[in-house]
Amino acid sequence: MNVIERELSRSIDTDHALLNEASLHLLKAGGKRLRPAFVLLGGKYGNYDLERLSHVAVPLELIHMASLVHDDVIDNADTRRGQLTVKSKWDNRIAMYTGDYIYAKALVIVARLQNPEIHRVLAKAMVQMSIGEMEQIRDFFNTEQTVRRYLLRIRRKTALLIAISCQLGGLAADAPAAYTRQLYRYGYNVGMAFQIRDDVLDLCGTEKQIGKPPGSDLRQGNITLPVLYALQEQDMQRTLLPEIQRIHESDGATDVTRAVEMVKQSRGIERAEQLADRYIQKAMDALQKLPEGKTRKHLQEIAHFVAKRSH
Amino acid sequence: MNVIERELSRSIDTDHALLNEASLHLLKAGGKRLRPAFVLLGGKYGNYDLERLSHVAVPLELIHMASLVHDDVIDNADTRRGQLTVKSKWDNRIAMYTGDYIYAKALVIVARLQNPEIHRVLAKAMVQMSIGEMEQIRDFFNTEQTVRRYLLRIRRKTALLIAISCQLGGLAADAPAAYTRQLYRYGYNVGMAFQIRDDVLDLCGTEKQIGKPPGSDLRQGNITLPVLYALQEQDMQRTLLPEIQRIHESDGATDVTRAVEMVKQSRGIERAEQLADRYIQKAMDALQKLPEGKTRKHLQEIAHFVAKRSH
Repeated sequence: MNVIERELSRSIDTDHALLNEASLHLLKAGGKRLRPAFVLLGGKYGNYDLERLSHVAVPLELIHMASLVHDDVIDNADTRRGQLTVKSKWDNRIAMYTGDYIYAKALVIVARLQNPEIHRVLAKAMVQMSIGEMEQIRDFFNTEQTVRRYLLRIRRKTALLIAISCQLGGLAADAPAAYTRQLYRYGYNVGMAFQIRDDVLDLCGTEKQIGKPPGSDLRQGNITLPVLYALQEQDMQRTLLPEIQRIHESDGATDVTRAVEMVKQSRGIERAEQLADRYIQKAMDALQKLPEGKTRKHLQEIAHFVAKRSH
Repeated sequence: MNVIERELSRSIDTDHALLNEASLHLLKAGGKRLRPAFVLLGGKYGNYDLERLSHVAVPLELIHMASLVHDDVIDNADTRRGQLTVKSKWDNRIAMYTGDYIYAKALVIVARLQNPEIHRVLAKAMVQMSIGEMEQIRDFFNTEQTVRRYLLRIRRKTALLIAISCQLGGLAADAPAAYTRQLYRYGYNVGMAFQIRDDVLDLCGTEKQIGKPPGSDLRQGNITLPVLYALQEQDMQRTLLPEIQRIHESDGATDVTRAVEMVKQSRGIERAEQLADRYIQKAMDALQKLPEGKTRKHLQEIAHFVAKRSH
């Protein structure tokens, strides 16, 4: 992981001062580096070659970073309550183009690999991710969406990139196809659990734990699984629905504590956690089809961490 | 070109209604399809295979479209005079993610080609393009920038993508390296002339010709070549500089007619046109090193069109 970290820094280096600053800021902000870790672990099931693997691991983390910075373009505007100052305008432009720059840098690195399968898998996942982002916008404040729709959305938004991180690790190491398939299955299920856990934490975590005020999703109109489950309870629906409507009408510029408390009083959190656990169980099932050893143990530990994490 | 047009429509097809609508709108808005045309013409210098060539031509037009829609994210906000309505917020998100989607779709198509050189060239150009966009932001209202800096910026912003369109046409058709090099040179110089002509038209064209009010660049703070030349004239500088300062302070929400008229009274337009002509001449020189024939004639005609176009 030290090698990956160094390569990440090197990858975004440019003599354009502003871009350098913005990209480095993003990189330093850290993150769990989950995707590179999965690539390296996936690579253990084939011919482990750190250089080749880094040409997948670094781009995947960069793509993740770029997608986050594009999310921020929108969030920035929100924070300023719809008032677009010159400064915020500049930030938005810079955030968007920093994202574009990081995407492109990711492609330069992955272009070093010749395996066309890798390019295909990556490009297709990027398409799905951008559709997922659009779906999130479409479904903002849509309280009538089904659980299935929520799951499809987080699959695109989060689970796919984690799934292909595991898969591409295997592919870049020429692991047997049967292993690569199980790596994908493991990653997909861990990714689903990861996002559900994220959505639960947004409601139940403290500001210190999650680095943002609780209820940020609701404020933005992002209707997550615990909320959808809560809305299935008739009593809850009667009080929660108008409250969400109120948040919508205020364009997010209101206190969301009451709505958060309602969801916490429902069975929504518990049921969401149960579903996350089921995904973790499926991830573990996929691992059972991979050879025993240290790598498998690591992958199991990560799956457990994902399900229980509080940050 | 009919095949390319059909493939362009097919390429962006998705069952996500909003994305479909936004992408199709972009596609229908048209454009000169200059980049695909250059790919096909470049392909004539090797083994012309329309299917292979379309796997380069379509992505290049998509990348061009995506970069335009990302430009619009910012322009949209400007038009609304800094006031961010919910509707404009949605437009911005949608424009940004539509751009991301189209970029990703471009990659899916180009992933069908195995030649790693093609991936390398394309990814590197995308990096340069995003740096160019950032430079444009950095240089907004910077009246002290040199002509060299302007040229470097339009090289990244425009000329490179046109250069690699010619080059990748050759590469995808396995044309001799000597031809591919000249195709790149031709495209680069045509691209430079194209952007200079664009910048001249923004000042001298009618709203009907250019599809936007004249002086849009100045309003946005985009200091183009004719303006830089005008500022080199001492008399002009005394009146033009405060006028640009005034536009800057009004954040573009002002009449730019006076500034436009000043530039038109200077020698800026004429000198910019002369430089564009020199680039066209260099493009013609590059063509001299390619075999004579119908294709070369077409490329010459396009170069002439670029230099003289009024739309």
